[in-house]
Amino acid sequence: MIQSIAKENTTKIVLLVMDGVGGIPNNKENQTELEAAFTPHLDKLAEESICGLQLPVGNGITPGSGPGHLGIFGYNPLKYQVGRGVLAAGGINFELKDGDIAARGNFCTIDEQGKVTDRRAGRISTDLNQRLCKLLQEKINIPGVEVFVETVKEHRFLLVLRGKNLSGELLDTDPQETGKKPFPARTKNERVNPTAKIVDNFLNQAKQILHHEHPANMILLRGFSQKPQWPSMKECFKLNSAAIAAYPMYRGVSKLIGMDILETGETIESEFETLKNNWDNYDFFYVHIKKTDSYGEDGNFEAKKQVIEEVDRFIPMLRELEPDVIMVTGDHSTPSKLAFHSWHPVPVMIWSEDCRSDEVNHFNETSCVHGGLGPRFPAEDLLPIVLANAKRLEKFGA
Amino acid sequence: MIQSIAKENTTKIVLLVMDGVGGIPNNKENQTELEAAFTPHLDKLAEESICGLQLPVGNGITPGSGPGHLGIFGYNPLKYQVGRGVLAAGGINFELKDGDIAARGNFCTIDEQGKVTDRRAGRISTDLNQRLCKLLQEKINIPGVEVFVETVKEHRFLLVLRGKNLSGELLDTDPQETGKKPFPARTKNERVNPTAKIVDNFLNQAKQILHHEHPANMILLRGFSQKPQWPSMKECFKLNSAAIAAYPMYRGVSKLIGMDILETGETIESEFETLKNNWDNYDFFYVHIKKTDSYGEDGNFEAKKQVIEEVDRFIPMLRELEPDVIMVTGDHSTPSKLAFHSWHPVPVMIWSEDCRSDEVNHFNETSCVHGGLGPRFPAEDLLPIVLANAKRLEKFGA
Repeated sequence: MIQSIAKENTTKIVLLVMDGVGGIPNNKENQTELEAAFTPHLDKLAEESICGLQLPVGNGITPGSGPGHLGIFGYNPLKYQVGRGVLAAGGINFELKDGDIAARGNFCTIDEQGKVTDRRAGRISTDLNQRLCKLLQEKINIPGVEVFVETVKEHRFLLVLRGKNLSGELLDTDPQETGKKPFPARTKNERVNPTAKIVDNFLNQAKQILHHEHPANMILLRGFSQKPQWPSMKECFKLNSAAIAAYPMYRGVSKLIGMDILETGETIESEFETLKNNWDNYDFFYVHIKKTDSYGEDGNFEAKKQVIEEVDRFIPMLRELEPDVIMVTGDHSTPSKLAFHSWHPVPVMIWSEDCRSDEVNHFNETSCVHGGLGPRFPAEDLLPIVLANAKRLEKFGA
Repeated sequence: MIQSIAKENTTKIVLLVMDGVGGIPNNKENQTELEAAFTPHLDKLAEESICGLQLPVGNGITPGSGPGHLGIFGYNPLKYQVGRGVLAAGGINFELKDGDIAARGNFCTIDEQGKVTDRRAGRISTDLNQRLCKLLQEKINIPGVEVFVETVKEHRFLLVLRGKNLSGELLDTDPQETGKKPFPARTKNERVNPTAKIVDNFLNQAKQILHHEHPANMILLRGFSQKPQWPSMKECFKLNSAAIAAYPMYRGVSKLIGMDILETGETIESEFETLKNNWDNYDFFYVHIKKTDSYGEDGNFEAKKQVIEEVDRFIPMLRELEPDVIMVTGDHSTPSKLAFHSWHPVPVMIWSEDCRSDEVNHFNETSCVHGGLGPRFPAEDLLPIVLANAKRLEKFGA
């Protein structure tokens, strides 16, 4: 529907995503990280914005980073689901080709009967992982299939199979508990699948190669998937879009919907510099701040608060660029009290000259409940409002 | 669903629609038109009502008047879409019969190669339009088809074709830009369509007849459509309904859902007089105020504000009739700051003795955010609440 009324314009949009920014009270004053942080510029922006709390996927749903981002990009995260293998490839900047099969691998430990005793092989070091991946890469030989075994981190690696007519319709080989043998490669629909034979061949060779290793003497595979053919931001919303993200995983998600990936550094400052330097080249900029989530997952209230304060100091620089629309939010909540992603709605604000601001003057969980977007706004519907504010939607009906 | 539990009753409902009433701040005090207007009676009603902001079609969507009205009449505006030709017929009170094909026409200017140089023929006068329509009406002859060419205004006219087995599945002949030739009549599905031949015959005759005219020497046709077969307000909600609207377009939309159209004058006073005079004859009255939208589109903040104040002065007269339920809203926002329809949600209030009023005491954009209907209530769901307040819905389930 939005696709049919989207139109081009010269207006510019910035989507600033503080990963996992939402929180729950976790200090002596019973405040969230956003509430405790000193954020004069974000609060000024909130005063001039329409505010609320957004639901990335649905009520009670704790989103992973993929669905959390797809919603705020205007894609229904239940419809656009991406496999773990494809995300792992994005996460290490592995360029998947059409038709490639990607899977997330774990090194694991099995006993003499072949039963899994540790699904993560004691979380082996990344160094050991690299040696084992190299070993598998060198020794495994499957006729007609190119095999890539790439280190991710600790016990995690990426497997990519490249060949003709491969199918990603395979179930996990990971039995999900110890005391059980890994499953062979199986199809979802019980039909005979040549790709399953190829994967079994791979697994058998890997088992022999790793036989004398310890503790990583076997592998488990999950999330077989192929690069999805999704409509791009250009096709859906007529936006020339660019992603500014220091972490590969977020570049990966952005690439799936056709964003250009801009080279940038690790710091928040360098991300905003990248924004400034590319200002003339795009309509839509997605700027991703990772460390709010990282410190949330570490349970580090104070450090998460400080990242928010650092972002706040760059808001004037953002506003000097004179974007037509600014949206600030997160892809999900990561309360430092819980130290993991959570189901709580995420503060959001949309600023434009014509946004019709509400009475919210602080960008935080408690204030945004009273905003014009309401306390449970579907993430997927944010982008249409952003586009409307950017005068990029035609009128519907006569 | 609502249809299955709707029941008859003797209660009376008034839906007061101030067209385009919603606004955004646009005066020195940073107020909207509703906020700046002196509206003691609307505010008193708000104090006793359940309030909120309603979304006519969806988030970010700027509705035309058709979809904007269908939502507040309880019809899903995405499901019930009506063509421009049918709306144009409603707009000039042309009575379409079942099977008629209606299209919106423009007089345009073409050059010697037949390319369009002005899609509106310099916005010719309505007088010239009338002469040209009469000329076409008299001279065009298509065997087996009755042709009606009716003046709308300036360069706009209505074409109606009446005959056997005609199809409205035709694309616009308007190329939408100058420098191109008008399209011939084409079907949406590329199939051969006898109606396309009839339209081409009409276009060829029109071209010859207008050959020596200037600047209106050709016509463009848009929005081919047939009167839709929609369920009536009576069928959906068991309501005997009447429309009081000074402007033809709104009478047209009302007629599509089976409302009786009451004769009324141009002024707000005469509309309320019509309401009073017909009070005993209907269950549901739709009263339409046009000028809030007209002045909004003119960018005239002060005049729009004054229309709101004029409506306010008739609220006591409305309440003296002792309706059981009153709903006040608009079909969309038309902020004078933007001078066109917009995507912003529209203030709405539903009053009845049993509505369970909230803490909102002012009928405007900022206050209604905090109302019991919330800041983003789907327009389509308003009528069920109105019916419930009118004790016109059965209990659902045992």
